[in-house]
Amino acid sequence: MRILLVGAGGVGDAIAKIAARRSFFEVMVVSDFDLTRAERTIAWIEAKHGSQRGRFVAAQIDASDPDRVAAVAREHGATHVMNAVEPKFVLTVFAGALAAGADYVDMAMSLSEPHPTHPYEESGVKLGDDQFAQAADWETADRLALVGMGVEPGLSDVFARFAADNLFNEIDELGTRDGANLVVRDENGAEMFAPSFSIWTTIEECLNPPVVWEKERGWFTTPPFSEPEMFDFPEGIGAVECVNVEHEEVLLMPRWVDAKRVTFKYGLGDEFIGILKTLHQLGLDSTTPLSVRSSGGPVQVAPRDVVAAALPDPATIGPRMTGKTCAGLWVTGTGTDGTPREVYLYHVSDNEWTMAEYDAQCVVWQTALNPVIALELLSLGLWTGTGVLGPEAFDATAFLDLMALPIAQGGYGQRWGLEDRLTGG
Amino acid sequence: MRILLVGAGGVGDAIAKIAARRSFFEVMVVSDFDLTRAERTIAWIEAKHGSQRGRFVAAQIDASDPDRVAAVAREHGATHVMNAVEPKFVLTVFAGALAAGADYVDMAMSLSEPHPTHPYEESGVKLGDDQFAQAADWETADRLALVGMGVEPGLSDVFARFAADNLFNEIDELGTRDGANLVVRDENGAEMFAPSFSIWTTIEECLNPPVVWEKERGWFTTPPFSEPEMFDFPEGIGAVECVNVEHEEVLLMPRWVDAKRVTFKYGLGDEFIGILKTLHQLGLDSTTPLSVRSSGGPVQVAPRDVVAAALPDPATIGPRMTGKTCAGLWVTGTGTDGTPREVYLYHVSDNEWTMAEYDAQCVVWQTALNPVIALELLSLGLWTGTGVLGPEAFDATAFLDLMALPIAQGGYGQRWGLEDRLTGG
Repeated sequence: MRILLVGAGGVGDAIAKIAARRSFFEVMVVSDFDLTRAERTIAWIEAKHGSQRGRFVAAQIDASDPDRVAAVAREHGATHVMNAVEPKFVLTVFAGALAAGADYVDMAMSLSEPHPTHPYEESGVKLGDDQFAQAADWETADRLALVGMGVEPGLSDVFARFAADNLFNEIDELGTRDGANLVVRDENGAEMFAPSFSIWTTIEECLNPPVVWEKERGWFTTPPFSEPEMFDFPEGIGAVECVNVEHEEVLLMPRWVDAKRVTFKYGLGDEFIGILKTLHQLGLDSTTPLSVRSSGGPVQVAPRDVVAAALPDPATIGPRMTGKTCAGLWVTGTGTDGTPREVYLYHVSDNEWTMAEYDAQCVVWQTALNPVIALELLSLGLWTGTGVLGPEAFDATAFLDLMALPIAQGGYGQRWGLEDRLTGG
Repeated sequence: MRILLVGAGGVGDAIAKIAARRSFFEVMVVSDFDLTRAERTIAWIEAKHGSQRGRFVAAQIDASDPDRVAAVAREHGATHVMNAVEPKFVLTVFAGALAAGADYVDMAMSLSEPHPTHPYEESGVKLGDDQFAQAADWETADRLALVGMGVEPGLSDVFARFAADNLFNEIDELGTRDGANLVVRDENGAEMFAPSFSIWTTIEECLNPPVVWEKERGWFTTPPFSEPEMFDFPEGIGAVECVNVEHEEVLLMPRWVDAKRVTFKYGLGDEFIGILKTLHQLGLDSTTPLSVRSSGGPVQVAPRDVVAAALPDPATIGPRMTGKTCAGLWVTGTGTDGTPREVYLYHVSDNEWTMAEYDAQCVVWQTALNPVIALELLSLGLWTGTGVLGPEAFDATAFLDLMALPIAQGGYGQRWGLEDRLTGG
């Protein structure tokens, strides 16, 4: 396997660092628009693990140009293109991989567009629609595009497959639930507001109309922040207020897993929800440039870019952050013994550990872990397929076993949890 | 009296329109950095009231340059300079007036600077300090600078003098309380967030450490939004949550009126307080330019300027606004009969009326009314003085009488109210 990694930002950097401990691939080309970022990642790996004897190669790339993506893939004989750039470049990297005859993996799907007249009731262009529309081309080319293979989407979708195959006769709801107890402190030790993930993407996710799937109704949307619920997260994180958010799981799971309802709720918490509502109310979430005075005369800037510039770069807050983040899937229905069952399948990532081991903050690291495991399963031939497929289309047990197997036994040593929530149910 | 009005923005425009109905002055030179704004004000006056035969003259001015202010004042033989530009130009207009040998009136005082080490406990440079420091120069020149003569500060300070002279033997608290029930609607009739006053100035006022004065302690500061209280406003406005805000009254009243405590609380309401806290938390209140990406490459903009650009211009929302704004002074202490007394002295401005009569929204119009009355009292010789003086230094009854006197009898026809709040007290 020869991997072209597109993007050496937070997640791309962590993918390379995690892959550096594995031997399933021959070469990983770490590419970025900014070549020095790619070089920095490789320098970290070599400082930590010694010379990689050409296993890691840096390259410059323009993710917005499919021809350039294809050219870099061909130049390095890439068998797989691993997309780790912003979602707005999904379609160009996707097209470049197909053009180069490579398989493709990403962690976020092509972007949605709200319904033109009923944005908070009906879905318009859905997440991934533009990718699934090209499924026949990938099938014809006998190539695989594995889409949505981060942690959420990704691991959450693997959990859905696992629950359907092993835990339930009938599923009522597949509810991805994400929550954390992360705290960032300033130089003086005071808690500060510093989102652990790109505020630009968070605004996009949270202010787009959330999508829900129901068997009788299909996909539909709601107003932002709908159906708030307190969800209890494990390992000391505790109860966090979660609300509906547009997310890929809702588009992926119903295609392969039988359920009555599919949701995604993000544990934003009161404070963050309030902040996002305020940004929206003031028009500061907008991506349309405004004319703003400056010392050099009026300039055109998008308010959302100003919000992002005013906050600390999520890639830099790792050392000042403590706490854990939890990604998981809450499943309700009828268990294999015919009685009601409710489980939460999850994985927790602790920032102190990810910083110590990988110099990567936990949210970024947790996202990066899963595509590396998936690539290894593809390399081993334990996962195979052609066309545009989600993680649900593959063997979940193979994934979860490799993930949990101790490092000494060749696994990733990452425990995942299963909580049965109806005691005596 | 020959008046040089500096600034034809919202308040300056309304000052000229209000003055146009009065005959106490010979000439008003309406000046602005943007000459077309000054010309527009005069065109409105002539369309409404017919030719003014040279009583109103437009001029270009640069308020940041004292020499230019003095030159325009001299050119037109100004006896009085009426400052109606942003507070950051107070000192330059103030200096220009003195240089030209003119008297001076403003509606906001020179800006404060927080205490360098204990900003939320001790005052640093206070509002107006830089003006009071020059009092001797004004006295030597036998000229008057009447500072803080809008509605708040201004009318509130007149009420303080009135209460001390006529209603109380001893005053416990002079508490300016400002509240409104204004609602702005979008094209579809939905309520929208649109502050009725410059968000730039509102942020400055509300996020600066609020100042309080106590007889035993002098001036001190508190954290923003301190001492929240529900205050009941008259004429159907009702209860509004008010919090401490830095404001000129607290610096002015103790210099001339005997009281145990002086405060200013602004009826921001829950929603606005939440928004201001969020802007501060995210650093979006900052006036320090940030580097922000734009289609033309990185640009430098101050987040607060972006917030101002994203919101509707307060000067344009009048037609879409309904409701009333109330400015007033709550006074507690011992009445002239020796028993406890609590009164609220106030003036209410109704947006529908100010729009119909003056094409000016009510908050702006209410601010503009008071300096015109003060100029008329100076012109009549009912108010006289030299040095740097607040409204408290003058005869409050003369002001309130001229304000309330019906138009047909030569007054301004603006009723002010007195509510006794301790019934049977």
